[in-house]
This record gives sequence, C-alpha cells and structure tokens, in this order.
Amino acid sequence: MFNYLLKIEYDGTDFVGWQSQKNGKSVQDNVEKALKKVLKTKIRVVGSGRTDKGVHAFSQYANFKSKIKINEKKTFLNSINFFLKKNFISILDIKNKKNDFHARFSAKLRTYEYLIINRQGNLSLELNRAWHVKKKINLKLMKKGAKILEGNHDFSVFRASSCSAKSPVKKMHPIKISKINDKIKIRFSSQSFLQNQVRSMVGCLKYLSTGKWSINDFKSAFKSKNRNRCAPPAPACGLYLLSVKY
Amino acid sequence: MFNYLLKIEYDGTDFVGWQSQKNGKSVQDNVEKALKKVLKTKIRVVGSGRTDKGVHAFSQYANFKSKIKINEKKTFLNSINFFLKKNFISILDIKNKKNDFHARFSAKLRTYEYLIINRQGNLSLELNRAWHVKKKINLKLMKKGAKILEGNHDFSVFRASSCSAKSPVKKMHPIKISKINDKIKIRFSSQSFLQNQVRSMVGCLKYLSTGKWSINDFKSAFKSKNRNRCAPPAPACGLYLLSVKY
Repeated sequence: MFNYLLKIEYDGTDFVGWQSQKNGKSVQDNVEKALKKVLKTKIRVVGSGRTDKGVHAFSQYANFKSKIKINEKKTFLNSINFFLKKNFISILDIKNKKNDFHARFSAKLRTYEYLIINRQGNLSLELNRAWHVKKKINLKLMKKGAKILEGNHDFSVFRASSCSAKSPVKKMHPIKISKINDKIKIRFSSQSFLQNQVRSMVGCLKYLSTGKWSINDFKSAFKSKNRNRCAPPAPACGLYLLSVKY
Repeated sequence: MFNYLLKIEYDGTDFVGWQSQKNGKSVQDNVEKALKKVLKTKIRVVGSGRTDKGVHAFSQYANFKSKIKINEKKTFLNSINFFLKKNFISILDIKNKKNDFHARFSAKLRTYEYLIINRQGNLSLELNRAWHVKKKINLKLMKKGAKILEGNHDFSVFRASSCSAKSPVKKMHPIKISKINDKIKIRFSSQSFLQNQVRSMVGCLKYLSTGKWSINDFKSAFKSKNRNRCAPPAPACGLYLLSVKY
C-alpha cells in the first residue's frame, strides 16, 4: 500500500465544511469523488482536521492509502484538478508518506489566520472572505488581549459544546496581529485547537478591542472556563486554515 | 454647487467595466443609481479613468457635483452602501473638493497591481481574482524586463487600437515585483496609462519570464512600437486599480 498526502486549497463559502456529512456538499466528498475518477477505485481521505461551514483553507492536508502507484505527479495534479476546478477546490501538491503517517495525528502545528476588514463601507472584493467590523478596533488593546491567550491554558471558554477533544488545555504559540490599511490579520498557531476555538477567541478579542469589554472583563471571561461567558464567535467566512506542519 | 469625491472599491467580475455602456451592467451606472436613491436627484459621476470588463478596484475615484450639501459623511456612507451592497461595490469614503477638481484630469499618479498565481493547481480562493500561470516564472527575468519599461518611453506596442490618448509617450515609475509563495504581484505607477497598457505589459513580461521570449525579443518588441508585436494581453481578472493620487 502507498500512503499519499494531498495539499488542498478551497473557498469554503458554498461547503458545509471539510467533513463528509449526510446532508450538503462537503470538501471531503468532492475530493473523494475526484480521486475515484482519477484512480478508478473508491478512496477514503483523512483530513488534518475539520473546518466549519464557510471556513476557507490555503493549505488543508489529507492522506489516503492506495494500491495504485502514482508515478507522474504533474499528470495526477492536472487530472484531479480537471475534475475539481468548477468546485472551488484545488489540489496543490501530492507527496509520498510512510505507512504510519496520519494527516490528523501526525500534525505537529496548525496555523489559522483570521481576517477582519475594519471600516465603514461594506465588503465587495472581500465579501465572504472576511469579517466586516464597522466599529473602530483598537489594535493595541487587541494585542494586549492576544498576549493573555499565549502559552499553556485551559481554553474551555472558547470551546463549542459539541467539541470532542480529550482536554481543553492547549499550548498557544505567539499570536501575530498585523494591520495594513483596513485589513487586520490575526494568526494563531497550536498543535491542535478545540472546536470553535479560533472564532471564539476572535469574538472575544473584538469585544475587547471595540470597547465592549475591559481588559479585566476579557481576563475574567477567559479564566472562568465557562462557555456562557464567551463573546459571540466571529463568523466563519473570515477564517482560513493557513498551514499544517508535520 | 458642491463637488464631492468618492473612493470606490469593486469586484469587477460581473461588470462590463467602470464606464456606462449601452449594454450591460457598469460600475458607474450602479453608483449613479445608488446616488439618485440617496440624494433624490439625477447625478452624473466622473471616474478617474475606465477600467475594463472584469478589472477590479481597491480604490477607484469619481467626483460629482450637486446642490445638496452632505453634512453627515457616516450617514451618507451607510445609506449609499445599503443600496450597493448586493452589487459588489463599496463606497469607502467621500470628500469635499474645490469646484475645479476633476477625478480624471486632476489625477497625478495612478497605480495598478497585477496578480499572478504561478503554480500547477487551478485557482479556488483566487478564482476570477488572478491570472493562473502554470509555466514556471523566472522572477529575475521578469524584473529585468520590467526595468526596461521604467522611465519615459513610447508605449505604442502596448496600446489598444481603440485607445484615444493624445500621445503614446508616458513616464513609468519604478515597477515593483514581489513574490510570496505562489503569488506574484506586479505594481505599475504612472500619471496615466494607455488603454490595455498594463495587461499588455504583463503579457509581454510573462512571455519573457517563461522563456517564450529572450530579453532581446522583449526589447525588440518594445522598441518596435508595433501593436502586432505585443504578446497576448494578460486577462482582466488579475488587474486591480490600487490607488489614484491627486
């Protein structure tokens, strides 16, 4: 058996998310259908993790096992992309992996980026690609809040009730916040994230940076570990899976 | 009479271009319709210049004259964007200008950016937002070619036959080329451009940087001033009007 790793980009707008579901169009289903067309056999792929409905990916990864040896990488990429190109999914790369490699369990670091457009005017070029926040964001306050989230913590307050992770304790790497004109990008890295964690963190950072919360409100919500204390999560359309390191 | 300047962003995908035309949906028509709804009177706007069908703008500018004084900038922006938000157009700002200000003739510097995605896999997140070039681009060669275009030159080779400019001689400011992962951005600044000039220059730079042309072929085409010697212009979807300085 060969074990292959795919690097996948997608515009999540019209998908129910990465993961196969009974109802609706998932990225996983579309990738599997295209693989079946190319390799003429049913293939099951394993993603590095789920992404929610509407969340985008610059680099999602998924592995699959197959008896078929893929010799011509370029030909394979051309074929599979031919079947995917109308679906807003692109396969960027394919790599050989050892048999015990697992796209989810072998991941060492995941990086998500959240995009906010902070201005009065509605979105056009970034429609469905960013969160439109009209209220002026205080970047210093946002950075101050982000600092509090770095390191080892119990992230329960940001955890969706349906999250199946064993522990709410995660290690958050330094959070990078940048601003160019009206675009604010917030970059989060961790080995793994709880369900809804990034969007919940961004929701709380927005409350803090627009003056709805003081820094003490923010700290107190974070320390409470109580989901009910979380600000409304930021919308999915601003979230991008940026990279996964193995 | 008051003279107002609008800063406008749009996703050009579904438009016939900036300029009003007998057939098809133009950005100008949509802006004028929205102005009529807000100001209750027919308004004619003057753009800083035309953008072709499919070309985007982060900052297009247009001025209009009106007897109505717009006191509340924020209220005005909210109202006009309410009428535009389903049309992929956003009004970002409105400013008072002196009576002799003209969005086209007062412009001192226009900057366009062209986006190329250079990779095997098709586009998904950047579909309709970039030119997908599969052939490997040699960035050094592209920069070498761009250098030749800088300064005062006769740009006739890049000029559409329908171009109405008085002279094909323009001054091209230093061209900035950057690459991050598979994204190549080429930034052109000049007081004004000939019709089709940017897309034609990018087309020729692509021929050069993918090995279809030698540097001598490139130079010779440029010096020929003969439109028939131009490479096929790059597609409109990769072009963005980035800024106009007054």
